[in-house]
Amino acid sequence: MKKVAIGVDVGGTNTAFGAVGPEGNVMVKNNIPTPRHGNINQYITDLADAIKKMISSLTEQNKDLKILGIGIGAPNGNYYNGTIEYAPNLSFKGVVHFVEMLRPHFSEHEAVVLTNDANAAAIGEMIYGGAKEMKNFVLFTLGTGVGSGLVVNGELVYGHDGFAGECGHTTLVPDGRLCGCTALGHLEAYCSATGMKRTAFELLSYYNATDSILADKSYNELDSKMIYEAAKKGDSIALEVFEKTGAWLGQGLADTVHHLSPEAIFLFGGVTAAGDLIFEPTKKSMEKYLLPIFKNKIKILPSELKPGDAAIVGASALVWKELEK
Amino acid sequence: MKKVAIGVDVGGTNTAFGAVGPEGNVMVKNNIPTPRHGNINQYITDLADAIKKMISSLTEQNKDLKILGIGIGAPNGNYYNGTIEYAPNLSFKGVVHFVEMLRPHFSEHEAVVLTNDANAAAIGEMIYGGAKEMKNFVLFTLGTGVGSGLVVNGELVYGHDGFAGECGHTTLVPDGRLCGCTALGHLEAYCSATGMKRTAFELLSYYNATDSILADKSYNELDSKMIYEAAKKGDSIALEVFEKTGAWLGQGLADTVHHLSPEAIFLFGGVTAAGDLIFEPTKKSMEKYLLPIFKNKIKILPSELKPGDAAIVGASALVWKELEK
Repeated sequence: MKKVAIGVDVGGTNTAFGAVGPEGNVMVKNNIPTPRHGNINQYITDLADAIKKMISSLTEQNKDLKILGIGIGAPNGNYYNGTIEYAPNLSFKGVVHFVEMLRPHFSEHEAVVLTNDANAAAIGEMIYGGAKEMKNFVLFTLGTGVGSGLVVNGELVYGHDGFAGECGHTTLVPDGRLCGCTALGHLEAYCSATGMKRTAFELLSYYNATDSILADKSYNELDSKMIYEAAKKGDSIALEVFEKTGAWLGQGLADTVHHLSPEAIFLFGGVTAAGDLIFEPTKKSMEKYLLPIFKNKIKILPSELKPGDAAIVGASALVWKELEK
Repeated sequence: MKKVAIGVDVGGTNTAFGAVGPEGNVMVKNNIPTPRHGNINQYITDLADAIKKMISSLTEQNKDLKILGIGIGAPNGNYYNGTIEYAPNLSFKGVVHFVEMLRPHFSEHEAVVLTNDANAAAIGEMIYGGAKEMKNFVLFTLGTGVGSGLVVNGELVYGHDGFAGECGHTTLVPDGRLCGCTALGHLEAYCSATGMKRTAFELLSYYNATDSILADKSYNELDSKMIYEAAKKGDSIALEVFEKTGAWLGQGLADTVHHLSPEAIFLFGGVTAAGDLIFEPTKKSMEKYLLPIFKNKIKILPSELKPGDAAIVGASALVWKELEK
């Protein structure tokens, strides 16, 4: 009997889901739109139907499969309550009892469990990725925002209310840039893909850099991939964006090390495709801020989860982790 | 049979020790100088003899006592290895195998265990103090330096190497004040008792405040207690020192909340005697930096450990915690 876990990634536009084997291999996947209509009942029914259809197609081909359960990664997901709470990018308002509503559709399975996307990625790293042998590590997701998942003594840190691991909202620069959360100077405002774009525009202004490749793009056109492409061509503004982003991120990671003393910090997300361009200044900066007892001990590593399927795979890992207990 | 744990507080000048009952009551205590001679073998022998003498005097009076073990709080103490590592204020250099050396003197007891002073205080708070019912909390010690102990899921966070919980060395002000660890802008350089003195001198200079009570003290004379006394008399410089210290500390505590989402943060140390003068600006500042999901949820509380005996009591709590396992 081959065991399989379903992973569900609730995104602002699409909800992707797939069946994942014990090695983190996606056997089949599909998606439905995450609706803008705000009708949570309809959405849950549609999602449950779509997942069941996928499971049926899979079990028809493989009679000896056992579906263990469903893991869900969602913005503002709360593990303790199985809820999505006040997620700014979803049309479902307030506190949504996601697990409670989905559970009856899958009563034959052992676990239906939910957490936020970054926590799911961290558990994915622990179950299938580079943190298999680690008991203390941290994962940062660098995307439109910055999320994080913290693992202490082999367990994800949820805190007293389920919302721990919001390291994107630690303060890097007192009274600095406006963060999406309305506070000033948070890490997310500097080290996310959006933060990199903001840095690029600051530098263009500062140097009046009319000869930069980036100077021909509007604010709404420019994205972090273009900055990466420009940096590869030696554009000095783009290169400085990576230097500054790394310097800020390293400061933030040092704060996390001083809290938790992890064995390693994994970086996840499109920005990490830039490799040494981002890892080197980050490492250099982190070391600068660390106490001597931590210097040259903490690894900064790229996530080993494959970018395309990582959200589904991470969410599915929740099920394996849950059944360990 | 009444159970008792021995607590040992290794300080720069004195090593205090006492026998502590299950309610955190110190039954008897004593101390020896922490020597400057750097001879660790001699010190361990002297300490063991003094503790044994105290135990004998105690058991002569109470025949039905059972001494469970010895808990040690020490600067740069490492729980995993039972070592004191590169403690800047002690004459014993390098890595000192404290537990390994003390253990043979107390082979009849169940536990000999060591951690750093702030971790010991956090465990003391959990076993005897205000955190008895809490599974997720944080304690900050505000003294000459700033230490911290973090508790997640009812367990102290030691990290992968035993050195977690150095929140005093998170960065508050990039390129800010020189910290004792040689980095710039760390929390300890702003929020410790020493940090308050530094702030007072900055403010005296800034305002050229010749009429402040603090203006008649030299840098080496001034301490945080004098700042408190001046603040009680309405001295505007002293009052602003508390405002600014609270603002900085609140920024740091918000970073910790974003990591761990604790139920409460306990503040410990002489500075906390100032009550609302320090708690109010700290709370106000922390709230300013917090994500909406955390606002008005996290308590900032004074430690319930009694100042005089807290270090001994905290160290003794290590034994109770160890025997829970």
